[in-house]
Amino acid sequence: MFEAAELGHQISKGDYKAQVPGLREALLDAQYELQAVARFPVLILINGLDGAGKGETVNLLNEWMDPRLIDTHAFGNISGDEKEYPPMWRYWRALPAKGRIGILFGSWYSEPVFTQFKEEVDTAALHSRLDEIIRLETMLAEEGILLLKFWFHLGKKAQKVRLTALEKDPRTRWRVGEREWMHLKHYDTFRKLAETVLMRTSTGVAPWMVVDGEDERYRNLTVGKQLLESLRQRLAQAMPQPTTTRSAPLLAPLDGLRVLDRLILNQSMSKSDYTEQLEVLQGRLNALSRHPKLHKHSIVLVFEGNDAAGKGGAIRRVTGALDARHYHVHPIAAPSEDELAQPYLWRFWRRLPRRGRFAIFDRSWYGRVLVERVEGFADEANWMRAYSEINDFEQQLHDANVIVVKFWLAIDADEQLKRFQAREETGFKRFKITDDDWRNREKWPAYREAVHDMVERTSTPAAPWLLVEANNKYYARIKVLRCVCEAIEAQLR
Amino acid sequence: MFEAAELGHQISKGDYKAQVPGLREALLDAQYELQAVARFPVLILINGLDGAGKGETVNLLNEWMDPRLIDTHAFGNISGDEKEYPPMWRYWRALPAKGRIGILFGSWYSEPVFTQFKEEVDTAALHSRLDEIIRLETMLAEEGILLLKFWFHLGKKAQKVRLTALEKDPRTRWRVGEREWMHLKHYDTFRKLAETVLMRTSTGVAPWMVVDGEDERYRNLTVGKQLLESLRQRLAQAMPQPTTTRSAPLLAPLDGLRVLDRLILNQSMSKSDYTEQLEVLQGRLNALSRHPKLHKHSIVLVFEGNDAAGKGGAIRRVTGALDARHYHVHPIAAPSEDELAQPYLWRFWRRLPRRGRFAIFDRSWYGRVLVERVEGFADEANWMRAYSEINDFEQQLHDANVIVVKFWLAIDADEQLKRFQAREETGFKRFKITDDDWRNREKWPAYREAVHDMVERTSTPAAPWLLVEANNKYYARIKVLRCVCEAIEAQLR
Repeated sequence: MFEAAELGHQISKGDYKAQVPGLREALLDAQYELQAVARFPVLILINGLDGAGKGETVNLLNEWMDPRLIDTHAFGNISGDEKEYPPMWRYWRALPAKGRIGILFGSWYSEPVFTQFKEEVDTAALHSRLDEIIRLETMLAEEGILLLKFWFHLGKKAQKVRLTALEKDPRTRWRVGEREWMHLKHYDTFRKLAETVLMRTSTGVAPWMVVDGEDERYRNLTVGKQLLESLRQRLAQAMPQPTTTRSAPLLAPLDGLRVLDRLILNQSMSKSDYTEQLEVLQGRLNALSRHPKLHKHSIVLVFEGNDAAGKGGAIRRVTGALDARHYHVHPIAAPSEDELAQPYLWRFWRRLPRRGRFAIFDRSWYGRVLVERVEGFADEANWMRAYSEINDFEQQLHDANVIVVKFWLAIDADEQLKRFQAREETGFKRFKITDDDWRNREKWPAYREAVHDMVERTSTPAAPWLLVEANNKYYARIKVLRCVCEAIEAQLR
Repeated sequence: MFEAAELGHQISKGDYKAQVPGLREALLDAQYELQAVARFPVLILINGLDGAGKGETVNLLNEWMDPRLIDTHAFGNISGDEKEYPPMWRYWRALPAKGRIGILFGSWYSEPVFTQFKEEVDTAALHSRLDEIIRLETMLAEEGILLLKFWFHLGKKAQKVRLTALEKDPRTRWRVGEREWMHLKHYDTFRKLAETVLMRTSTGVAPWMVVDGEDERYRNLTVGKQLLESLRQRLAQAMPQPTTTRSAPLLAPLDGLRVLDRLILNQSMSKSDYTEQLEVLQGRLNALSRHPKLHKHSIVLVFEGNDAAGKGGAIRRVTGALDARHYHVHPIAAPSEDELAQPYLWRFWRRLPRRGRFAIFDRSWYGRVLVERVEGFADEANWMRAYSEINDFEQQLHDANVIVVKFWLAIDADEQLKRFQAREETGFKRFKITDDDWRNREKWPAYREAVHDMVERTSTPAAPWLLVEANNKYYARIKVLRCVCEAIEAQLR
């Protein structure tokens, strides 16, 4: 795939001088239009060989365009804070919002490629990593991001010439070290590896653009024009139509019997039993939260449930056992403007806890397959793909030592009605009941379907759903606390 | 993901009797409408636990519907002829045409799951296999196939009861052997493995439908209704709109310089040199074709090139060296009606050679990114995804010991004009020149772009493009023969 980038492409000085002013102006125009319509973000990945002009290109783009609308991120080895999160965390934080351009200098490709290069781990492991990347990029494309993947290439001889020149110049000497010469020495191995990676990850929605890095003028114009044409084409496109679902529809079981129906929602627990057990369990959880081994883990608790099922009360009993410095509760409502400018999982990646900490989500990413599905905020193709995207997300958490515990607090319609009425009658609780709650209640059957599909399709070995019978609040809170303790203990063994 | 299938769903005898006649009639109606509009095929995958009703369901569907419009294929271990082809070959052969229903009993999931179960190969290898499957299913969905993946499940106790019952009945005793009891013994391991596989491969376009296999009536109605609703929904959908391209556009290099431009098309070779070398090379190729080690390989030769570039002549010089029983030449023109009813790669999978044989393609699957792109027969999103699909396809060939050699025969526009005119003037060659050829010639620049993108994006380590300077026919033929010999020799070493 590199043959075309080893032809010694060149642009003459005169040509370059003639073309650059117009190109810069057009790029600025496109950039401002992008900002004005703010319909999609642009993400540029910069990868390739040492000395092929990666850094120069990043600088160039910032020079040619309005740098206030560009977010540039350079990534080296994963280090410091980053080690406390899943590997993809740092890239999610760097995603540009709609209307902006993000440049990732050293992207999610660098680490898998260099690991394979250095350690020659087995190919299956590399391909597994690459397939993760493909799934991520496919999701980003489905979410509307314009993705430009540049690979800067040099022939072997050209690379040697370039490294020698960089080393000679006192201003650039720092850029050439042992690592770079070592790469040159194993040029052929690296070229072959890069070819495999590019082939595997050049997909219909995110193809690689291989750039011949030898001639600076050629390189600059190539990147500039590719960016310009890509922006123009996408800006000219109408808003994407709702996608036709290509999958079979999800039918409810014929007998209407679903996992949650087997729960006996009316469990009993006396107040004195509750008080007694609460104290024991909170003590146990507190001890666990200080367990030395917990510093290798972080904890994500997800609370979903029917309206008025008692999520808030259950959460307060959990936090009551924790040091306030160790947890953060994230109430999740409709996404903000900033959040709407990003893929739907973005706001949750931002809220992941560091090692030793708890993140407690009062509602969560499951909104995608619950409220967004039922209310039609997401079209069918989009919420259908969310099941596997969410499973992917939670698998990544699990693989990074995050303990994920997901609760569905279930009450029946009668119990909900009682609680709604009680809320309306009790002054200090009236803020908890809105017209929306009553409206949602009318859609009980549609929500019921959505909840069942969610539980059945996202209960995975890495992150199973825990179903909580919640007509009795005492019982529910005790079950939640016990499950949290057990989930943590299972990991600390 | 199996919780929902362990609830002991049941349908009463009365309910069943009341519902079946209407369901069968509706299924038949849908089936005939499917045949009448013939806009898409339906593919049903049947997988799951022993004794959970897989075979019964296959029989049932054939009984309830018109079996003349159903193609049922049962797959056991890969054996006999099948071993001579890539693992996916047997499934490609079994794909249903538009308007028909295909049932795969034991699908592409069986082998990876059971290999993992028996040998516990490392997880990365399993995931790599599953990712291949995801890519395949995504492609099938993009090509319009309605894919229904059923997993028949049983709880551990229910499976034991079922196996015991089957063993007791003399009519079904054959279905329960050592293998089945062994599976039951390792039920928990298998359940966990199956859960991982289903989670990983349940995608937005091809979700799994888990069926509780315990109650026969429930199982039958579930499968029947799921099929009915899926058919109805898809039949009600309008023809899919051309997909919006989500990728950046492919720009030509700024200087217009591309790999093929570096070729010096006018090579010289005298007739006497040609005659001499032809004999030597044909002898060499003939010996290679009888090499004992070649029985582990098969050979696929792809000939693409400008109109009148001499593909036919070069092919005849290759076949001249081969035993007629050992090769087959496949001239590829516009797809037939049968072929249009299938994914575009289908007609090539059918033409793969068995071990020790040559398949020579005079034009090929690259039509997708050449003529179909230029003439607009495939919309942009579709030919964009073809690059990676084709790379996938050729990688599968390579992994299955198929030697893939791809030739692009290049002539320039002047040479083409000369040959066109000569063809028109020579009576016996006149059939070789049509109005289409002249029309294509007018689109030379568009074809040029398409050819370059093709060469640059599908030249892979497993199957690189060999570029042949073909203004001189002698030179071109000799280069082709030499490259074929060298490619085979490289594999026989």
